This record gives sequence, C-alpha cells and structure tokens, in this order.
Amino acid sequence: MNDPAKDLLAVNAAFYEAFENADFDSMRELWATDDGVVCVHPANRPIRGYQAVMRSWVALMASAPYIQFFLTDVEAVVVGELGSVTCTENVLSAGTDTPDVASFAGASAAATNVFRLTPEGWRLWIHHASPVLSSPDADPDEPTEGGAS
Amino acid sequence: MNDPAKDLLAVNAAFYEAFENADFDSMRELWATDDGVVCVHPANRPIRGYQAVMRSWVALMASAPYIQFFLTDVEAVVVGELGSVTCTENVLSAGTDTPDVASFAGASAAATNVFRLTPEGWRLWIHHASPVLSSPDADPDEPTEGGAS
Repeated sequence: MNDPAKDLLAVNAAFYEAFENADFDSMRELWATDDGVVCVHPANRPIRGYQAVMRSWVALMASAPYIQFFLTDVEAVVVGELGSVTCTENVLSAGTDTPDVASFAGASAAATNVFRLTPEGWRLWIHHASPVLSSPDADPDEPTEGGAS
Repeated sequence: MNDPAKDLLAVNAAFYEAFENADFDSMRELWATDDGVVCVHPANRPIRGYQAVMRSWVALMASAPYIQFFLTDVEAVVVGELGSVTCTENVLSAGTDTPDVASFAGASAAATNVFRLTPEGWRLWIHHASPVLSSPDADPDEPTEGGAS
C-alpha cells in the first residue's frame, strides 16, 4: 500500500533539488498552477499566483550560482488531499558577489511547505521560508520573541 | 449563498483578535486539534502539534502585555476544504521590558495562515509569520534575497 507521507516527502525533496540545480523546468512542474499559490521567500512579502511565483524562482535561480540545502527536523503530515512538510533548511550558498569561490555563506531557515493532492499528484501550494535566529539548542516549544505572532 | 472566503476571513480576524486580547480560550478554539498543526513564530523554528502550539501561545500572551495588529495586503483563497489567508501583519507592541508605557515597537511580518474545513467550521492548521525586511515600496514579485528559498 502506498504511503502518502512518503510521496509527499519525495515531492518535497524534488523541490529542493530543483532549486539546487537551478532546474526551472522541474520547479514549475512541482507547483499547483492556480492563482491561490503563495511563496514567501526569507524576509520578503508574500508572492501570489502561479505566474508571479515562477518569476520569483527565475530571479532567485539567476542570482544564486551555488546553493545547497541540508534539511533537518523534517516532518510530513497528510490529512486527506492536504499535506504539509515542515523542516529546517540549512543553506550553504555562494552569491554572484562572492569574491572568492572558496567562501560561502551559511544560514538556517524554517520552512513550511503545503501541498495539495491534484489529479497529477502532490503539488506545492504554499512555500514559506523564514530566517531562524534562535539557537539550535533552544526549546522549540518556547518562542524567543514576544513581538509579532 | 454563503461565501467561503468571507467565513475564512472572519476566522482569520478572530485569530488576531484573540492574540490582541490575550484571549487564550478563544485562541485554542480557533485551531484544529490534531498533531499536524504547525506554528512558526517570527525568527523561530516550527512548533508542531496542538499541545505544543497552545503552550507557545500561553508563553507569547504572557510576554506581550500590549499588542495590536493592523493587517494589510490580505488575500483569502479557498480550494475545497482547504483555505489560506496571507497578509502583512503590521504590529504595534509594548513588551514587559519597555521602561516607558508611551514607547512602542513597530514591525512588519509576512503571515501565511492555512485553514482546514472541519465539522466545526474553518480551523487554523498552520500559522507561519516571518519578519519582512524589504521596503514597502519594493516589487513583491522580485525577492530581495538570493540566499535561502
């Protein structure tokens, strides 16, 4: 019997692989194509609708010649035709403005990926990634900021 | 005929009202009660499961004696029994460490709120809020960072 969470994790892995490889053709096949899709890149405002989200990926892929993701704390949940994968994105990247190819920047982001089961299989509906400032040893049940929700 | 997006926006508004009023009883009624619920507070890692998410709200409500949300750029989408509300949270808050009650801190966050239609109505399934660093005049289709996704 097929495990829906396993299918979901495979699509989630394909998403990060497409970004790492700057494989725009794969990236656009992974998303639902409706106007309800939403993408929030770190420190940015929401981008809505398939066309606008795809434009943002073209821009990101063009600006990041090298990027690699090490996913930790990955959890997948399926409820009917709705699925989510949450994880920590540990990112290693080199930008176009990096003077020395041997110097890299590392960062961590919390990612929420929401998927819809479509006739074509699981498709990304929402991707929201945001920088994590708390220490890796902090208790995840205790938010470190009391500001916004 | 009932407009599902209108119902969704009402629950979304109730969520921010519960936080503003530190009304924990209302807050816990707004969420789905399964282990799949996820909450990402700004700059934090994901908190998963109904019990852990509720504990985080108790902690946040205890640490923020005054908080007010002005929501802008609000958009609701409904696909079957799945709904999302994305918005910018413009937050005005005073912390317990604010020496002068007349001094407030303001900040903006991008919020993705995902809802499931349950037998009891729309319930929050995922809340992800993250600080926005881009200027309010920036083109939302052009992400300002090329780092993480």
